[in-house]
Amino acid sequence: MDYQQFISRQVNDIRQTVGDGIAINALSGGVDSSVVTVLGHRALGDQLKTFFIDNALMREGEPERVVATFAEMDIPVELLDARRQFLDALAGVTDPEQKRQAITDTFYRDVFAELVEQTGARFLLHGTILTDIEETVAGIKRQHNILSQIGIDPEEAYGYQVIEPLKDLRKDGVREVARELGLPGEIAERIPFPGPALATRIVGEVTEERLDVVRRATAIVEEELADTGAFQYMAVLLSDRATGIRDGNREFGRIVVVRCIDSVDARTATARELPWETLQRLCRRITQIEGVNRCLYDLTPKPPATIEYV
Amino acid sequence: MDYQQFISRQVNDIRQTVGDGIAINALSGGVDSSVVTVLGHRALGDQLKTFFIDNALMREGEPERVVATFAEMDIPVELLDARRQFLDALAGVTDPEQKRQAITDTFYRDVFAELVEQTGARFLLHGTILTDIEETVAGIKRQHNILSQIGIDPEEAYGYQVIEPLKDLRKDGVREVARELGLPGEIAERIPFPGPALATRIVGEVTEERLDVVRRATAIVEEELADTGAFQYMAVLLSDRATGIRDGNREFGRIVVVRCIDSVDARTATARELPWETLQRLCRRITQIEGVNRCLYDLTPKPPATIEYV
Repeated sequence: MDYQQFISRQVNDIRQTVGDGIAINALSGGVDSSVVTVLGHRALGDQLKTFFIDNALMREGEPERVVATFAEMDIPVELLDARRQFLDALAGVTDPEQKRQAITDTFYRDVFAELVEQTGARFLLHGTILTDIEETVAGIKRQHNILSQIGIDPEEAYGYQVIEPLKDLRKDGVREVARELGLPGEIAERIPFPGPALATRIVGEVTEERLDVVRRATAIVEEELADTGAFQYMAVLLSDRATGIRDGNREFGRIVVVRCIDSVDARTATARELPWETLQRLCRRITQIEGVNRCLYDLTPKPPATIEYV
Repeated sequence: MDYQQFISRQVNDIRQTVGDGIAINALSGGVDSSVVTVLGHRALGDQLKTFFIDNALMREGEPERVVATFAEMDIPVELLDARRQFLDALAGVTDPEQKRQAITDTFYRDVFAELVEQTGARFLLHGTILTDIEETVAGIKRQHNILSQIGIDPEEAYGYQVIEPLKDLRKDGVREVARELGLPGEIAERIPFPGPALATRIVGEVTEERLDVVRRATAIVEEELADTGAFQYMAVLLSDRATGIRDGNREFGRIVVVRCIDSVDARTATARELPWETLQRLCRRITQIEGVNRCLYDLTPKPPATIEYV
């Protein structure tokens, strides 16, 4: 595929579709939403309103870092603190489907719907990629229907339109476009990070305390495995606990799983063989996090596992 | 240490202590209780009544195999089916301490106490080793007090006596004694297997269905890792579940952990570096067990983890 041609076509299409209207998009800092933001900004300039919604589920320093990265490209991104809303919606929820639903509902119905209203936007730019659509069709992911998710009946939604410039690409294609767009390596080569963010790496209830544990473990894994060139690597906090010994006393401690996979397009994946020294170092650092006394390495390919745990 | 001398001394001590009385012991097939059984039988012959109590928590074919092994050494072992009693006691119990307590109570108060009464035994042979005593003192294991556990007040227990021939040895010493006694390699070199058996490898409730999963995973791990010479290797079934894909459909599947450690005496341990091919083969076989879609490898040393999970 000629990616320069792809970019020109998408920029033209977005410009023609939006005309002199207002478009809105949510930026997570992942490669999909970043590419959409740049394409949209190229097409629309100030007619595009881009928001970074802090849902309390992001990694260490991530909201500020993403906003700063786009500021350097002269793309203004408004940071919206919605942490309390998400944490309240997640309190007491342990079922993975309900958890994802609570995040989706809070995101679209509570937070994003209000932004659409405030900005007067009639066009929603969204970073849907081909794999999302395929997995929705296959019943692996839930349906993405943004208009109904923000409370707009698609039947009556004359004047509202969802624009999905990446819907024919897979992850590898999106990265090519990111490079062509001149996005910095930290975005173009950024490992995939799911929309529901650290909540997909917490089995069981999502609380501030548990987010803090998985956030610290994630920082360790990302630091130790940055040079591997693997497709994705992550830390997962389980809900189960296991017996252990700390300072000579019995401790019923937390369990953290490290997952590091190779994949081309996230449709299938295999666990990466890591040097034993690396695994030992990960274990040593992760079990220094308070209350964590087990560190496990995930050996499972996709299928039968998915990449994430929730 | 001169282990032949140790054996002679223990056999003499047991004979002198028991005199013409009746002694009883429970054999699990582990090296500790096997050595005690042989020492006791050498000292007492028919005055020692040895029972193998099937608690529903044993590995594939284990009860029959242990009885047959001792029959070949002309040591009669009575197999007692107590599976229903243990499964009933464990129903609904998820807390690790309560789980161990339910097994201990069922074993001593319900099953073993009745055998003591039936046999008229006044002497109880027990395979306590030094590490058990040290960990009890350190508060890592619960107190072992057999007499009170079978409902006999030690204060009033004139005539009852617990004999612990191995209480000055650690695991490596017990194995030396086993070799000196001419026990077959499958016992002398047998990897440690805890008293509460597969229940220590099930996080959460112990049910027949979950025992079946961990029993099948254990058979795979023991087959694949038999040649490693590692101190201990096991499969653990977690209570948490993770998302996966099976035959194109979403599956919320079970998680099995493989643990393989090096240790001299179980006081400390390190995870064994296994060849990647071995780990991959373990994962492939274990995720073929119905409903299991994740296989993890435990990287953690003891401390901060214990060897078992419960």
